[in-house]
Amino acid sequence: MYRTHTCGELKLSDAGKKVTLCGWLQKGRDLGGMTFIDLRDRYGITQLAFNMEVDAQLCSEARKLGREFVLQVTGIVKERENKNLNLTTGEIEIIVEALTVLNEAKTPPFTIEDTTDGGDDLRMKYRYLDIRRNPVRNNLILRHQVAKQTRAYLDAQQFTEVETPVLIKSTPEGARDFVVPSRMNPGQFYALPQSPQTFKQLLMVAGLDRYYQIVKCFRDEDLRADRQPEFTQIDCEMSFVEQEDVLNMFEGLVKHLFATVKQVDMPIVPRMSYADAMKFYGSDKPDTRFEMKFVELKSDQTDLTFGKEFKVFDNAELVVGICAKGAASYTRKQLDELTDFVKKPQIGATGLVYARVNEDGSVRSSVDKFYDEAALANWAKAFEAQPNDLLLILAGKADKTRKALNELRLEMGSRLGLRNAANYSCLWVTDFPLLEFNEEENRYFAMHHPFTSPKPEDIALLAEGKLDKVRANAYDLVINGVEVGGGSVRIFNKKLQAQMFEILGFTPEQAQEQFGFLMNAFEYGAPPHAGIAFGFDRLCSLFGGESSIRDFIAFPKNNAGRDVMIDAPSAIDEKQMVELNIAQRAK
Amino acid sequence: MYRTHTCGELKLSDAGKKVTLCGWLQKGRDLGGMTFIDLRDRYGITQLAFNMEVDAQLCSEARKLGREFVLQVTGIVKERENKNLNLTTGEIEIIVEALTVLNEAKTPPFTIEDTTDGGDDLRMKYRYLDIRRNPVRNNLILRHQVAKQTRAYLDAQQFTEVETPVLIKSTPEGARDFVVPSRMNPGQFYALPQSPQTFKQLLMVAGLDRYYQIVKCFRDEDLRADRQPEFTQIDCEMSFVEQEDVLNMFEGLVKHLFATVKQVDMPIVPRMSYADAMKFYGSDKPDTRFEMKFVELKSDQTDLTFGKEFKVFDNAELVVGICAKGAASYTRKQLDELTDFVKKPQIGATGLVYARVNEDGSVRSSVDKFYDEAALANWAKAFEAQPNDLLLILAGKADKTRKALNELRLEMGSRLGLRNAANYSCLWVTDFPLLEFNEEENRYFAMHHPFTSPKPEDIALLAEGKLDKVRANAYDLVINGVEVGGGSVRIFNKKLQAQMFEILGFTPEQAQEQFGFLMNAFEYGAPPHAGIAFGFDRLCSLFGGESSIRDFIAFPKNNAGRDVMIDAPSAIDEKQMVELNIAQRAK
Repeated sequence: MYRTHTCGELKLSDAGKKVTLCGWLQKGRDLGGMTFIDLRDRYGITQLAFNMEVDAQLCSEARKLGREFVLQVTGIVKERENKNLNLTTGEIEIIVEALTVLNEAKTPPFTIEDTTDGGDDLRMKYRYLDIRRNPVRNNLILRHQVAKQTRAYLDAQQFTEVETPVLIKSTPEGARDFVVPSRMNPGQFYALPQSPQTFKQLLMVAGLDRYYQIVKCFRDEDLRADRQPEFTQIDCEMSFVEQEDVLNMFEGLVKHLFATVKQVDMPIVPRMSYADAMKFYGSDKPDTRFEMKFVELKSDQTDLTFGKEFKVFDNAELVVGICAKGAASYTRKQLDELTDFVKKPQIGATGLVYARVNEDGSVRSSVDKFYDEAALANWAKAFEAQPNDLLLILAGKADKTRKALNELRLEMGSRLGLRNAANYSCLWVTDFPLLEFNEEENRYFAMHHPFTSPKPEDIALLAEGKLDKVRANAYDLVINGVEVGGGSVRIFNKKLQAQMFEILGFTPEQAQEQFGFLMNAFEYGAPPHAGIAFGFDRLCSLFGGESSIRDFIAFPKNNAGRDVMIDAPSAIDEKQMVELNIAQRAK
Repeated sequence: MYRTHTCGELKLSDAGKKVTLCGWLQKGRDLGGMTFIDLRDRYGITQLAFNMEVDAQLCSEARKLGREFVLQVTGIVKERENKNLNLTTGEIEIIVEALTVLNEAKTPPFTIEDTTDGGDDLRMKYRYLDIRRNPVRNNLILRHQVAKQTRAYLDAQQFTEVETPVLIKSTPEGARDFVVPSRMNPGQFYALPQSPQTFKQLLMVAGLDRYYQIVKCFRDEDLRADRQPEFTQIDCEMSFVEQEDVLNMFEGLVKHLFATVKQVDMPIVPRMSYADAMKFYGSDKPDTRFEMKFVELKSDQTDLTFGKEFKVFDNAELVVGICAKGAASYTRKQLDELTDFVKKPQIGATGLVYARVNEDGSVRSSVDKFYDEAALANWAKAFEAQPNDLLLILAGKADKTRKALNELRLEMGSRLGLRNAANYSCLWVTDFPLLEFNEEENRYFAMHHPFTSPKPEDIALLAEGKLDKVRANAYDLVINGVEVGGGSVRIFNKKLQAQMFEILGFTPEQAQEQFGFLMNAFEYGAPPHAGIAFGFDRLCSLFGGESSIRDFIAFPKNNAGRDVMIDAPSAIDEKQMVELNIAQRAK
């Protein structure tokens, strides 16, 4: 027994007790005859006191200790003169009688404080020191809480957690697989799962009824900021359910997590069709912490822009805008910034039209020379704009304009302080298209994945070749504009599944070779089933109120897919290559 | 909503209710005017009744249904005439009013019954049908229970579950790694973890204090029966603890699991040193469900065999035996079987000496012509043998003889019915040797792993070169003769760790290259720490009372490392190989 108590538990009621504590030296202060040390462990900080007059040798020893030394001290708990009521242990200190240095420490490469002077690279290289800092450690503890409460909810709903295999089979559909050469089967490879999709469906065929798993998944994609080659999913599947049952079940999970992890009473999660999300927000994952819905001035249904000789609008397929409440006071400089923002190549608008609603209700716009007061008043009415509101309007091809306006809407939300990370707004987006056409490859891809069921009422459209029109029983959970989860009702009929693969460009032989096991399983009594998967890293970062997932992962990889702490990946022995029957490819 | 109830919940008190159930057709029985169907889901079986007189069409339809069809039925709950009190739902049946076939089923390749006619290969190929059988499904649910209770215990003890990375770095020490070529870092490879050992130690350096994880691990070993290339560990680590603290903490876990999963009140787990385990059981994982300890007739301490001209014993380093209670009645045939058993090449004894203690206390042995009655009486006394006991004695080189006698002891335990899977006996084995010499490679290997701390009192022996004598602070948990868990107190001092690597034949450069991150971490304030890992698959199979782990894994691989259901591993596209910068090695 190295210690009798942790550094986070001693209180005034413990005064007089003889205790032994262990921890790290957070900082020391020498005040004439006294030396104080803050001793830190995961649970808190306790003040140690050394008195020159009482024990000069011990006190001198204490003065020589460095930051992050690992100490064991024995002493008496005493009421403090200067209490620190911000600390759980702030009413007491330890009058130290014995001190053991359990381990020394070199000076850390960055400060072990809540706000550190260490840059990202240094923090990643010395991740074991970074995790000593409260914010990072608390993120990991939060992650544990989210996992624990997820299991608590799903266990209570009779879900069974089942581990599916990590060494599986490579399938070219979808993202790139990580592969593992098989030594015992020369020339053959396992793949790491991008998700346990087919296995969870097989568990439904197996009659398991309700399955979940908090599980590592792998995608060998070109990494963008905040994407990891290995990530964690809450993966779920249910039998004998319709979309409605799934949404209700997992709305329950979301409410449970908010209640237990964040002490937030989340109201009923609203639902929005994909079509409406695109129409009103230009995005299938709208941030609904704020309204600022799109209003169309010109579309195939309406036109409030025509007949005024303004070519930009006249030639546009869509004229659409947002109303920024109370932003009429924006300066010329601010408006120029917004124009520059929408003209950035990654957003791609050609310009920005704005209109201010003045105190007196009159409207002034950047296109006053085309549109008279009456026309602008009609715009303001369409936007339901109030005095002091600012209308921001884009025009062009419909899809591209909506996407650009989505970016502008988010930018305005941020500028107006409407996207506070401490506020949460959840949304179900439903009725996704089943397929999307890829111009480059000149073929359709499954928008969700090839196992997603078309809506029964749209199945006939498949045979008619109206592939764009087919909607899927697919749904996403969006929180604060982030896609946190997604799922679908699955195909459970071999014929329909085969038809899907054909549409996706598989020959029957390819479909059989890659997914034969699943299609065969469908012939032995597959139940109707549906499921969902949540991005666990992302969910944790949302609960933690941060936008980066990296600090919610104990040992993340950098954008080059490297773990800079352990220096992986790395070269392996030639002997290993020979055993695995592989060679470096000649350049 | 496909159903109002499951097939496992309707009771007499539900009589009169209109319900809708879904499930699989387990079996049907036509009895003249009535047809009965057992409808099965994960939760149970409910009897459906169809009456020819009431609805001839529906009843005829029901008669056409095949086994494993997926059905949805609506009807009225009614008290049964012939109750089946073995079933939770056995007091009621459903008078069916509407029937929908949700999916048809081909005839399964084996019967979906508790005892099936399917062989192992067929069951693995159609694992999704195999899991429909109660025993396999119950194993998976048991596994979920063990995981859940493990987390409940460790959470309550303030352990934090942390996910460590799966894509790590290959290290030649230990078993063979599975590796993953990195596309973004040509010529480099990740490795899949054989265990999260170094990461959990870094989490201790990071101050996390108490860590656990239920985690997949990977070893590319030649597969023996009942070994899987991917397996699951309960992996744990604690800071500021000594061996005693670890044993107490995890004895608590074991007791909690037995109490909650098996409703067994496990007494205090006894402890035994490695030296005693080898001396008294010839094994470091003795099955302590039964006693039958080794008794030495001749060793470096005693000799009850000398001076009788029996060369076999006279030339032996060790003469050692067991006393099989009540087995004196064994026939000549049975004794021949035992002799054949110990002479099998994998056991390797040259012969077996036996001695029977008769009803009257006299002893008759297979070596009567060498040993007189007084000598044999001394043997019986040494064994504390009673009338009707059978002494079984082996002789030869000490180590080999002990190992052979261990096998014979287990065989006798089985024959005498002392190894009932429903009984449990736990044991801590402690004080393992730190190192073991490998004749083939002519060097020492770490018996546990290179991070295990020698006992402080034995550290001096390292410098003196007395490597065989150094004991480790290492411990195994053994249940029913199976090593279920193992762990150790770790080295937390860079110098000692470097010394260990040197003893294991690493150059300082190799040690730095492979484990530099850990040794560097030790310089920044590493706390004393210790841990343990449990084989989760094995633990589940023990709780399930079975010797094979395969049926406690949802989708196991066969002895060639293949998943025969999905047919993995498999060839991958040449395009993938090119991207990964690897090629098949020329023969």
